[in-house]
Amino acid sequence: LPVNDEFGLIRQWTNPYQSAALQKSLGVVVGIGDDAAVVELKSGFQLVLSSDTMVQDIHFNEKTMRMSDVGFKAMAAALSDLAAMGAIPKYALVSLTLPHSADMAMSQQLYEGLYSCAGKFGVAIVGGDTTSTRGGWIVTIQVTGEIEAGKALLRSSALSGDVVFITGHLGCSAAGLDYLNTDSTIKLDLNLDLNQSEAIRRLSDKHRRPLPQILAGRILLQSGGCHALNDISDGLASEAWEIAEASDLGILLHEPQIPFDPDLLLYAKLSGKAAMDWILFGGEDYQLIGTISKSQIEFVKREFERRQLEYHIIGEVTDLFTGVRLLKQDGKAVEVAKKGYNHFA
Amino acid sequence: LPVNDEFGLIRQWTNPYQSAALQKSLGVVVGIGDDAAVVELKSGFQLVLSSDTMVQDIHFNEKTMRMSDVGFKAMAAALSDLAAMGAIPKYALVSLTLPHSADMAMSQQLYEGLYSCAGKFGVAIVGGDTTSTRGGWIVTIQVTGEIEAGKALLRSSALSGDVVFITGHLGCSAAGLDYLNTDSTIKLDLNLDLNQSEAIRRLSDKHRRPLPQILAGRILLQSGGCHALNDISDGLASEAWEIAEASDLGILLHEPQIPFDPDLLLYAKLSGKAAMDWILFGGEDYQLIGTISKSQIEFVKREFERRQLEYHIIGEVTDLFTGVRLLKQDGKAVEVAKKGYNHFA
Repeated sequence: LPVNDEFGLIRQWTNPYQSAALQKSLGVVVGIGDDAAVVELKSGFQLVLSSDTMVQDIHFNEKTMRMSDVGFKAMAAALSDLAAMGAIPKYALVSLTLPHSADMAMSQQLYEGLYSCAGKFGVAIVGGDTTSTRGGWIVTIQVTGEIEAGKALLRSSALSGDVVFITGHLGCSAAGLDYLNTDSTIKLDLNLDLNQSEAIRRLSDKHRRPLPQILAGRILLQSGGCHALNDISDGLASEAWEIAEASDLGILLHEPQIPFDPDLLLYAKLSGKAAMDWILFGGEDYQLIGTISKSQIEFVKREFERRQLEYHIIGEVTDLFTGVRLLKQDGKAVEVAKKGYNHFA
Repeated sequence: LPVNDEFGLIRQWTNPYQSAALQKSLGVVVGIGDDAAVVELKSGFQLVLSSDTMVQDIHFNEKTMRMSDVGFKAMAAALSDLAAMGAIPKYALVSLTLPHSADMAMSQQLYEGLYSCAGKFGVAIVGGDTTSTRGGWIVTIQVTGEIEAGKALLRSSALSGDVVFITGHLGCSAAGLDYLNTDSTIKLDLNLDLNQSEAIRRLSDKHRRPLPQILAGRILLQSGGCHALNDISDGLASEAWEIAEASDLGILLHEPQIPFDPDLLLYAKLSGKAAMDWILFGGEDYQLIGTISKSQIEFVKREFERRQLEYHIIGEVTDLFTGVRLLKQDGKAVEVAKKGYNHFA
């Protein structure tokens, strides 16, 4: 192939999606096609930078995700880190490493998913890099957002006396993944009826196309009462531990307050597995977990309801211990294992 | 390993290098360790965003690079894209994908190289992502720079009548790579003397530790007379073609004006290979190629000399044809092949 085929392919993958006029309205001065992108930033704002990588056979495989899902989820996971700071997402770079055997239609599908997610959140894709490998697909998305100067919501800012909240049901992505990874003979043995099939389809969709909680992050930042915030990429246990350790405090989760998604309960029963394990240690739901002062609860609840967003209080921050404990139905508190999805496991 | 070992490792890899005070002086508000980094940007400036990926067995292997070289060069290649816009580099994210078999000392060496290069150019490493793969090492560096609003130097801005210049000797990296990839028995047959060994060591160093031409890019931007600019990552031919096509003009390179590095000539003779092939099609020297109005030549030359930077005029921009031609010693002009290093080849 001649040298400029790399550019030709990139044009083919990216041209159908964001027009020059749309990119201009998003603050793009120079987009895809030069050495680097040039963009505008609002004055009085700070930059928020993050990246997230998805690796074939680690984060996805041919059984669990279509290529368009890989694109969608790679972008969603990167944007979730901006949500967890309370930032407004603006720009993305796509660093794509293709297997030598890559089918070009698969790249096109990947980009379809990337743009689908970017479009939902007003994000301009402004550049990146394309390379090849003898291994599998690797997609790194770097995102740039803006945030009111000095207002970023950190992990380390929890205060004793805060309540702990989450922005939606947890464990669904892990349950969906469990089903997607199940052998087809076992799937047949489940002998699903229509309602069960629909429930499992919804769980699978939550694994394949999670939605970063950008709006929730913005409301929490604007409330002024949110102290610590984290996105739940590795499970409730792991993310609560991060806030507890960064803030040098204890988090007491109240088991009866943790909401269970009906689809999750249904599939847990069908599969004979524990829904609570998926909630605590499953990850990839990309909901937010945060801490907020008691005086702000009603204001934030009202704002969330007004936007039809979920909001569940599930525990409290304390200086009586450090780490994360689960207060069970029977009144006993047990330490929650500091584990979750770990790429070095 | 427990979940937080990922953070432990990242701390171990990154802690020795940039102090909190240093990062603060570079505008870092929130650095490594939260969901995303938060940084400051100068008002009146635009953001410049780029990323670059290095893949094991494509861009490097155990024969050609030490892990610290991989880190240094990955950062240098990413910063070179900012140099090619005339931007000031500021921040970097490191997205590292490790083989399952990775030796942790190798990651530490990689980071040593990353920080060594970042330190030379005042760049703060502010975050990233760490994942694992069944394949080889993959390092993606995303860089963020700032630039005076509206002043970015694009590929598409060449004007007929401009002269074409480069900021240093080309082909050295490719010659160094050629030697590093040579079988050891053939190396022994070369029977090198001390001067020859030193020359080849310098060529190898240029392959392993190229320097992005940040200062040259800044001088060119500030001169106001530089029109088009590109960094030479894929060889002179490919980059000249990019400027010619983006500007819809012709570039005539004058063969007698193209400088030959003495080490390059020495190794070309030793190996029986053509130095000009390395110059035109070798790549990875990360010098800049640009076009400038004739009236600015003396000013830029003086500024470059004052900073002890190289500056070679090697051709001209014309509207008499489109594409890239080489005017040979004998007065005949031949079209230069539009090829270079291509990951899809």
